[in-house]
Amino acid sequence: MTETRLPDVRGRGFPSRTALADAMRWLDAHTAPLPAEAVPIAGAAGRATSAALTAATDLPPADRAARDGVAVTAEATLGAGGYNPILLPSDQATPISAGEPLPPGTDAVLPVEAAQLSPLGIEVLDALPAGSGVERRGEQARAGTVLLPAGRILRPQDLGLLATLDLDTVSVVRRPAVRILLAGGPRQGDEADAVMLAALVERDGGLPERRGPLDREALAAALAEPAADLVLVCGRTGLGADDIAPLALADAGTLAVHGVALRPGDSAGLGLVGPVPVVLLPGEPGACAVAYDLLAGRAVRRLGGRPADMPYATVRLRTARKLVSEIGFAEVYRVRIEGGAVEPVASAAVAGLAAVARADGFVLIPAESEGLPAGAEVTVTMYEDPAHAL
Amino acid sequence: MTETRLPDVRGRGFPSRTALADAMRWLDAHTAPLPAEAVPIAGAAGRATSAALTAATDLPPADRAARDGVAVTAEATLGAGGYNPILLPSDQATPISAGEPLPPGTDAVLPVEAAQLSPLGIEVLDALPAGSGVERRGEQARAGTVLLPAGRILRPQDLGLLATLDLDTVSVVRRPAVRILLAGGPRQGDEADAVMLAALVERDGGLPERRGPLDREALAAALAEPAADLVLVCGRTGLGADDIAPLALADAGTLAVHGVALRPGDSAGLGLVGPVPVVLLPGEPGACAVAYDLLAGRAVRRLGGRPADMPYATVRLRTARKLVSEIGFAEVYRVRIEGGAVEPVASAAVAGLAAVARADGFVLIPAESEGLPAGAEVTVTMYEDPAHAL
Repeated sequence: MTETRLPDVRGRGFPSRTALADAMRWLDAHTAPLPAEAVPIAGAAGRATSAALTAATDLPPADRAARDGVAVTAEATLGAGGYNPILLPSDQATPISAGEPLPPGTDAVLPVEAAQLSPLGIEVLDALPAGSGVERRGEQARAGTVLLPAGRILRPQDLGLLATLDLDTVSVVRRPAVRILLAGGPRQGDEADAVMLAALVERDGGLPERRGPLDREALAAALAEPAADLVLVCGRTGLGADDIAPLALADAGTLAVHGVALRPGDSAGLGLVGPVPVVLLPGEPGACAVAYDLLAGRAVRRLGGRPADMPYATVRLRTARKLVSEIGFAEVYRVRIEGGAVEPVASAAVAGLAAVARADGFVLIPAESEGLPAGAEVTVTMYEDPAHAL
Repeated sequence: MTETRLPDVRGRGFPSRTALADAMRWLDAHTAPLPAEAVPIAGAAGRATSAALTAATDLPPADRAARDGVAVTAEATLGAGGYNPILLPSDQATPISAGEPLPPGTDAVLPVEAAQLSPLGIEVLDALPAGSGVERRGEQARAGTVLLPAGRILRPQDLGLLATLDLDTVSVVRRPAVRILLAGGPRQGDEADAVMLAALVERDGGLPERRGPLDREALAAALAEPAADLVLVCGRTGLGADDIAPLALADAGTLAVHGVALRPGDSAGLGLVGPVPVVLLPGEPGACAVAYDLLAGRAVRRLGGRPADMPYATVRLRTARKLVSEIGFAEVYRVRIEGGAVEPVASAAVAGLAAVARADGFVLIPAESEGLPAGAEVTVTMYEDPAHAL
C-alpha cells in the first residue's frame, strides 16, 4: 500500500503480508466498469447491462386476447350453459388468436371448448364475466417498471424480452481485455495455468490474450504494452532466485503489494503500470486458482460491470469434522458435501488442482481463526451448482 | 402416449392433457447421451465428460519441495535456532524451488527465512522435523482416485488439472445439434422466441440452428430433414385455425403428446420423426420459456450428457403471501426473494417475459394443489445465482 519500492524477497522471505481484505480493497480502488457499447441482442447472452432497462409503455400496450377462442361481449353470454346454449350471430362473435387485440366493443374471450360453430353463428356454452380470457393493458408490466437492472448478466430469457420489445441492440459494459503473461522459463504447471486462466477470464466476461513464457526483460516490456484493461502475470512470484515477476512489475510500473495473507496463494502481488492494474499470481496451479478467484477474478468482474463477488453460490452447512487452519492466513479449505455435512477434501497446504476438481467447493477460514470444530456452521462457496451437488 | 393419431384440437379444445411427469418420462425414454468425441483441452470448458477420469499415477509421483527454500536432512538441523545457527556445507544444503524433486538423501525443505547464506555454506536458523516443506508422493491424489466423474461439466480449474496431467485432449459427449423451427407466419413473439431458444440451447450445451417461419408443408419437410439430434418447433401449437405445428409433426412422423398439464405452456407437444425427438413449444414467449426449461431443455441436456434437471439452483424458503393455483395443472409461479421470503411476481396466467426478467426464480405448484398459504415452505428454482439474489 506504499509508493516506496517494496523489498526484493528472493532468498529472504516476506517481511510482512497484506491482509486479504486490504488486497481486495486495493483492487476495488483501481477498477471500475468499462464504458458501454451496443451489441446485437442475439449475441448478448452473458453480457452485463450498462444501465437499467425500464418499460417505455405499458406491457401489453392495450387489452388483448389471452387465449385462442371467440371474442364476445360478456353481457351477451349471461345465462349460457351446456344445456342452454346462446346463439350469437357472427358479427357479435369473432374468432381470435391469443395475443391479438380485442375487436371494439368486446370484453371477453370465450374458450374454444365453450364455443360451437353453427350455420347461424356461434353457440355459446358458458357464461363469462367481463375480462375473462383477456390480457389487460399493463398486466405484464406498467410503463416505467424496471425490467432489467444495471449490471444484469443477461439470461437467454432476457434476450427474448428485449426482442419482444422490438429492440435490435442492448447497451452492455465492454468486455475487459485481459493480458495473461507467463513469467519465466518452462516449469511444470505454467502451461496448465495459462489454459485455466484463459477459461476463468472468459467465464467472468473478459477477453483473454495469452503470451509467454517471458524472461524479466520481456515481461517488463509486455507489461508496458498498451491495449490491456488488466494484466495477469502467472508464475515466478516466490522466494527463489528465478522469481522475477515482482521485479519485472517494479521495472515497468509500481509493485504495490507483494505477499498476501492467503493460503494457498500467499506469494500473490498487485501493482500498476500506468492506470492498468496488474495481478501477480503464483505458478503452483492450486494457488493460482485460489488467487485468481479471490483477487484477479474480482478485477475482471468489476471491470466488466459484474458483481465483484465470486460467481459461485454459497450454502450454510455444518462441518462433519474439524478443519485446522493457521492463524495469520486466510485459508482456503477444499471440501465436499456428504450427507448434508461439510467433509474436508484438502487443507490449504495441499497443492495442485486434483483437490479443486474433487471438491464441491471451499470454506474460507479467516486469518484470525485457528480453524473450526466439528459441527460448526460454515459458509461453503460452491464450485458446483448446489442443485447438482447437494 | 399412444400410437393412434391424436385428434386435431383446433377449434375444439384439448380432450385431455398429459401430466408433466409423464411428458418428462417420455422425453427421458427417447433421449440418451450422444457418442463421445475428443476435443482439445483449451476449448473444453462447459463440455460434459463422457467417462470418469482417474489418476493414472500417484499425484505427485514422487516426494518434492512444497516451498522455495533449502533441501536438507532434517536430522542435521537438530538443535538449530536463531541464537544457535548450525552451519551446513553446500553439499548438504541445496537451494530448491517449490515443485522440484528432493535431492537424494534429503527429507525436509528449510524455508528461506530460516536459512542464511554464509561464505562457508548455509546457516540453519530453525530445527525441522522430517517431511517439513515436503509434498509427499500421492498427497494430491492416489493412483486410481476418480478426479473427474463422467458427466462433469468441465470447469476452468478442471482444464488446468487436465493440462497438469499432460493431456492434450479430453473425451466429451458430442454437442447435440438442435434445429429450431418457427412455425407459421409472422406473429408477435415468434422472433423473440427464436433468439431466446438459441441462447437457451447454447446454455444447455447444444448447437442451435434456426429456421423459419415455415408453413405446414415446409415445416413437415424441415422436420423430416436429417442431421438434427433434436427438433424444437416454436409457435402454432394452440387451438386456432392457423395452429398447424401438431399437424405438420403428424405429417412428418408421430405426434405422441399434444397438451401438457402445465401452465404456462399447456399447448406443448412431443413426438418423433424417425428416432429424432421433437418438442412443440407454444409461441407465447413466457409459455415458450417455461416449456423449454421443463421439457425441451431436458432433452438437450440429456442428449449432451448433462444432468437432466434444470441448471438452476434451488432454495427452500417460506412464502410471504398466498400463491393461488388451479387444480389439474402444474403451475409456474414467478417469484422474487425479498427479505428472505418468497414474494409472488406473476402467476402462471401472466404472459410475456417481463415477469421472468423481474423474477429471481419460480415455484412449481403441483397439479394436485390449489396453491400455497402464506408461510408455507417451498422450493424456489432460482433463475439467478442464489449468491447474488439472496
